[in-house]
Amino acid sequence: MGHTAAVAGASGYAGGELLRILLDHPDIEIGTLTAGGNAGTPLGAHHPHLIALADRVLADTSAATLAGHDIVFLALPHGQSAAIAAELGEDVLVVDLGADFRLTDADDWTAFYGSEHAGTWPYGLPELPGARTALTGARRIAVPGCYPTCGTIALFPAYAEALVEPEAVVVAVSGASGAGKAPKPTTVASEVMGSVSTYAVGGAHRHTPEFAQNLSVAAGARVTVSFTPMVAPMPRGILANCSAPLKPGITAADVRAAYQRHLADEPFAHLLPEGTWPSTGMTVGANHALVQVTVDEAAGRLVAVAAIDNLTKGTAGGAVQSTNIALGLPETTGLPAAGIAP
Amino acid sequence: MGHTAAVAGASGYAGGELLRILLDHPDIEIGTLTAGGNAGTPLGAHHPHLIALADRVLADTSAATLAGHDIVFLALPHGQSAAIAAELGEDVLVVDLGADFRLTDADDWTAFYGSEHAGTWPYGLPELPGARTALTGARRIAVPGCYPTCGTIALFPAYAEALVEPEAVVVAVSGASGAGKAPKPTTVASEVMGSVSTYAVGGAHRHTPEFAQNLSVAAGARVTVSFTPMVAPMPRGILANCSAPLKPGITAADVRAAYQRHLADEPFAHLLPEGTWPSTGMTVGANHALVQVTVDEAAGRLVAVAAIDNLTKGTAGGAVQSTNIALGLPETTGLPAAGIAP
Amino acid sequence: MGHTAAVAGASGYAGGELLRILLDHPDIEIGTLTAGGNAGTPLGAHHPHLIALADRVLADTSAATLAGHDIVFLALPHGQSAAIAAELGEDVLVVDLGADFRLTDADDWTAFYGSEHAGTWPYGLPELPGARTALTGARRIAVPGCYPTCGTIALFPAYAEALVEPEAVVVAVSGASGAGKAPKPTTVASEVMGSVSTYAVGGAHRHTPEFAQNLSVAAGARVTVSFTPMVAPMPRGILANCSAPLKPGITAADVRAAYQRHLADEPFAHLLPEGTWPSTGMTVGANHALVQVTVDEAAGRLVAVAAIDNLTKGTAGGAVQSTNIALGLPETTGLPAAGIAP
Amino acid sequence: MGHTAAVAGASGYAGGELLRILLDHPDIEIGTLTAGGNAGTPLGAHHPHLIALADRVLADTSAATLAGHDIVFLALPHGQSAAIAAELGEDVLVVDLGADFRLTDADDWTAFYGSEHAGTWPYGLPELPGARTALTGARRIAVPGCYPTCGTIALFPAYAEALVEPEAVVVAVSGASGAGKAPKPTTVASEVMGSVSTYAVGGAHRHTPEFAQNLSVAAGARVTVSFTPMVAPMPRGILANCSAPLKPGITAADVRAAYQRHLADEPFAHLLPEGTWPSTGMTVGANHALVQVTVDEAAGRLVAVAAIDNLTKGTAGGAVQSTNIALGLPETTGLPAAGIAP
Repeated sequence: MGHTAAVAGASGYAGGELLRILLDHPDIEIGTLTAGGNAGTPLGAHHPHLIALADRVLADTSAATLAGHDIVFLALPHGQSAAIAAELGEDVLVVDLGADFRLTDADDWTAFYGSEHAGTWPYGLPELPGARTALTGARRIAVPGCYPTCGTIALFPAYAEALVEPEAVVVAVSGASGAGKAPKPTTVASEVMGSVSTYAVGGAHRHTPEFAQNLSVAAGARVTVSFTPMVAPMPRGILANCSAPLKPGITAADVRAAYQRHLADEPFAHLLPEGTWPSTGMTVGANHALVQVTVDEAAGRLVAVAAIDNLTKGTAGGAVQSTNIALGLPETTGLPAAGIAP
Repeated sequence: MGHTAAVAGASGYAGGELLRILLDHPDIEIGTLTAGGNAGTPLGAHHPHLIALADRVLADTSAATLAGHDIVFLALPHGQSAAIAAELGEDVLVVDLGADFRLTDADDWTAFYGSEHAGTWPYGLPELPGARTALTGARRIAVPGCYPTCGTIALFPAYAEALVEPEAVVVAVSGASGAGKAPKPTTVASEVMGSVSTYAVGGAHRHTPEFAQNLSVAAGARVTVSFTPMVAPMPRGILANCSAPLKPGITAADVRAAYQRHLADEPFAHLLPEGTWPSTGMTVGANHALVQVTVDEAAGRLVAVAAIDNLTKGTAGGAVQSTNIALGLPETTGLPAAGIAP
Repeated sequence: MGHTAAVAGASGYAGGELLRILLDHPDIEIGTLTAGGNAGTPLGAHHPHLIALADRVLADTSAATLAGHDIVFLALPHGQSAAIAAELGEDVLVVDLGADFRLTDADDWTAFYGSEHAGTWPYGLPELPGARTALTGARRIAVPGCYPTCGTIALFPAYAEALVEPEAVVVAVSGASGAGKAPKPTTVASEVMGSVSTYAVGGAHRHTPEFAQNLSVAAGARVTVSFTPMVAPMPRGILANCSAPLKPGITAADVRAAYQRHLADEPFAHLLPEGTWPSTGMTVGANHALVQVTVDEAAGRLVAVAAIDNLTKGTAGGAVQSTNIALGLPETTGLPAAGIAP
Repeated sequence: MGHTAAVAGASGYAGGELLRILLDHPDIEIGTLTAGGNAGTPLGAHHPHLIALADRVLADTSAATLAGHDIVFLALPHGQSAAIAAELGEDVLVVDLGADFRLTDADDWTAFYGSEHAGTWPYGLPELPGARTALTGARRIAVPGCYPTCGTIALFPAYAEALVEPEAVVVAVSGASGAGKAPKPTTVASEVMGSVSTYAVGGAHRHTPEFAQNLSVAAGARVTVSFTPMVAPMPRGILANCSAPLKPGITAADVRAAYQRHLADEPFAHLLPEGTWPSTGMTVGANHALVQVTVDEAAGRLVAVAAIDNLTKGTAGGAVQSTNIALGLPETTGLPAAGIAP
């Protein structure tokens, strides 16, 4: 138990998933739990599945309640992390599960979030080329968005090896937990069950610039992304269907070899056997991303698909993975390697 | 009750949906119902929701049992329709809900279905330019596939008006009834619930050439389609996310005007108000296709989305719509205009 | 089109289902639609599946906006119907889909609803012995609760024929639409999907006294009911599992004969063939209740199960069925006889 | 790693869940995996969520392949366990997840399973009074059925303390994985989604005598059980709604005190805080049973509800819990204490 951790926003879905993982982490001890409107209530009222923490009472979210821990996880609404982080001291590892510090381009931030850019922190997607170096020893981590985590893992080998043109198309479907736990008209159960819906079409989703940023990093050149998100009637999971025009002369064998090269040593991103395509059900509760890729000869496109659990690899598990790197622990420490199925 | 109709394959999902619609059709009387392995059992054992037909006993599927009706609907496995149709006489209206007579290119047929091409019948997608003319008075109708029905309605205005380049990308998600009622490993409930999966990626799905055929008809030139299908945990519905590179100089206003022009007079294909995106839940049990379209400026693509009920507009309702045209009835006769929600 | 109808509470689930049915009713014309907080918005924003009414703008709910129709359907929160009904005139047929006028015992009302009893109207469950007489020509109708509709149909033959002791146990499961369309923590999709939950256990549910009232009417003596409700991850449907101790000497043959006698002539309550048990999926969108009954010899109990669609037979369809009786129309007029499956 | 374990029936749902748990068990090493029809295929083809075991090839199920391990888990169809166990030697711990050795009454076995009774092994429900003693040091364990696990935990305190009459009513709902992984008409996804169904009503379910046996053990006298099972549209979970007539003079305080007394020290059966009712969603992937109890004064009944994950506490987790006891390990070793939600 080398490290203590506080969790801000513990009553939400991201906070609950983080606690589920930390309960099994051998090197991190769970400290103070905080919430906004739910402060003063026991955690069991919000996460009855976490029996061991049921009687923990949620404190108010503030720098004061969060101070005194080695690690502070922030699962807060956008815009609240910068002020708290500023008060916590530079030796505290602050891991932001929100969006505030993901983007490198201040104009992108303002265009999509409508406020002033707070800055850029080391980006917590270890699979992205260069990311592990930036995360090692870091004391600030920006955890990626759930869609960009999934889609980037599906496409970065193609861009890192210049197999495709810089015009990606990503159509991804998410489980309903991606919309959070607060009741709203679009997440009423009867509206979601039995229906798949599309939203934020045409480049309007806030994860669009993050996608383009990641693929541009992989390519070493500007990549545009046409991104369409959907919601499906399931609690968890993201499936990202990604494609881009193949560059002239690239063969299916080139593609498979490139994906094998980039994914063979990844602890949590796996290229499936040929012919097996990922489904979100293979990933529930696990920290792994499952990937498959092929070439559509008639259409001249590379098509790659990845599946993750949006709350595990896509949020809380990804956060702990990057935390392990920052702390110098083995990257897989405490992370669920097997999913729950069916 | 001007017309009598037999239904072959009545115990399956397509057959059941057809019977649900025909029960409310004022000009068609339900005659003989047939099945393969289920012959000899009452319909109520297979479709307990169709109380009025519960005691009807299923006959064997053969030209003999189907003869003597004005209309014969064939909801059979691929490859069985040609022989039966040949025996039924040219004055009988034969409506094939299977794939046998959809494709115009015999090589496409053989490449995707592995057998000899049976021929081409008038294509039952009234919204496709030219289709109503071919259907009027027809005595053979090939009902389109469910995915091509949805995706073609989403994209045909863009190709009919030459707004986009001939390289479409379609990522569509279907409810599980699209896989039929026969038990198989991929449709076991616990495997489907809580999971979205991708299959037949890279142009392998049999609906791929039908998509390309339809969009090429609309464009008057060859269009390629990169098609990726998914299955979502819901019984019914298809949502098709479609995009293509915009041609130079085409504006969002051009796009909207084109879609309004092509869809304004359609009885069952509706352009939604701006800002409203279709979901499959809006279409359950209805014969309508709901469409929305936008322009992704940053990615330079037109993005169109359509939703249908795969069993209604995508199969049985579409079949009755074309039947109405063939018989000279008002196109909307007997068809459900309102869906069931939630 | 002999009758005009206004619908108050048109933007909710009960209102939407009522409109779906009225769109197909040959003798009722849809007039003014009203809402509370949604007044001023188009119906299409709330019920996009009802394309034909998409542009209808919702008026405020008041006696003034509802006046001038032959029929007024009230789908309002509890406690609002009495004042409006008082202003509408005694010649207007007022059909209350809420609870205000269901109970005959004022003390029961106050104990379960906490306010003063507004009165008792003819009870709109035609299957209950004596109900059709009271409904014929009525100008006020209290539509039953969804659970009591289902459970009463399952058990009334047993009590009408004195087959069982007056101590019923009812454990029923409902789809999530029973909780209404307003967002609340218990109906957030991710909380509902993948989970069945029990609530209001131990006699706390407001439908408990209504159950006891109905079964007491059937028995001609006081019956107690132990009622436990659950919510399952589906939009629609109620399945009621009902049992009671068999009286001495009653045989399985007695039981079956009694159920056949009471249900044989019912247009919307059907005893299934022996060996077939009801599921909610057999009833979606239909006005029918499906019933099965057996005897558990070892436990000495009669066990009856009924399934309905909570929004159709359990609310809006039941309302129209009673309306037809009140108006002297054939009882089945305009009502969906076939469900949608799968 | 003191113990090696073989798993027979590894490609099914029970086998897969067992492997998920054993992967995290510090004192059990996974040895040979076997299957029937799936022998010769890799485990990854059946359980893609278990990445670490994906390449393990399934052997044929036989005493020869299973021999040489300290523990043999049998997840086989009914009737196959006795012959294999007989060949394995008395020092091997054989844990049967099937039904063969659960019942003590040979007539009950023959009445419900139609074959000759194979015998009775120590019953693996540690919560049942007396069970831990029988399990300590045992070399044969009969893992209970999933429904009896859930319902017995809900009711045993009431019977152990003689609070209720010996006539229990249990209405329980299960997720679809309870029906196994083999495709069959009743588990086709489109038939299950959107529908709750009842089956084996009137005492016909094979778990009925097991229920009666357990409650009779708790009561020290014969108890009858009216048991009605349902299937709900979710992969996992059982919710058991149980009630029985209160004995004269028993108060709500008596009931609560008794449940607290019996459950306070249980590691995996928890009485929830008053007012909180269990849902299956609180238990997914965890080995805990969550319980609540109340008194229905008007109906004169005790009502108790319990929720479990049918595959974890109801099958594989329960098996490992009893295995731990048999081996002298701490009872909670390797078992998931936290569920996955949402």
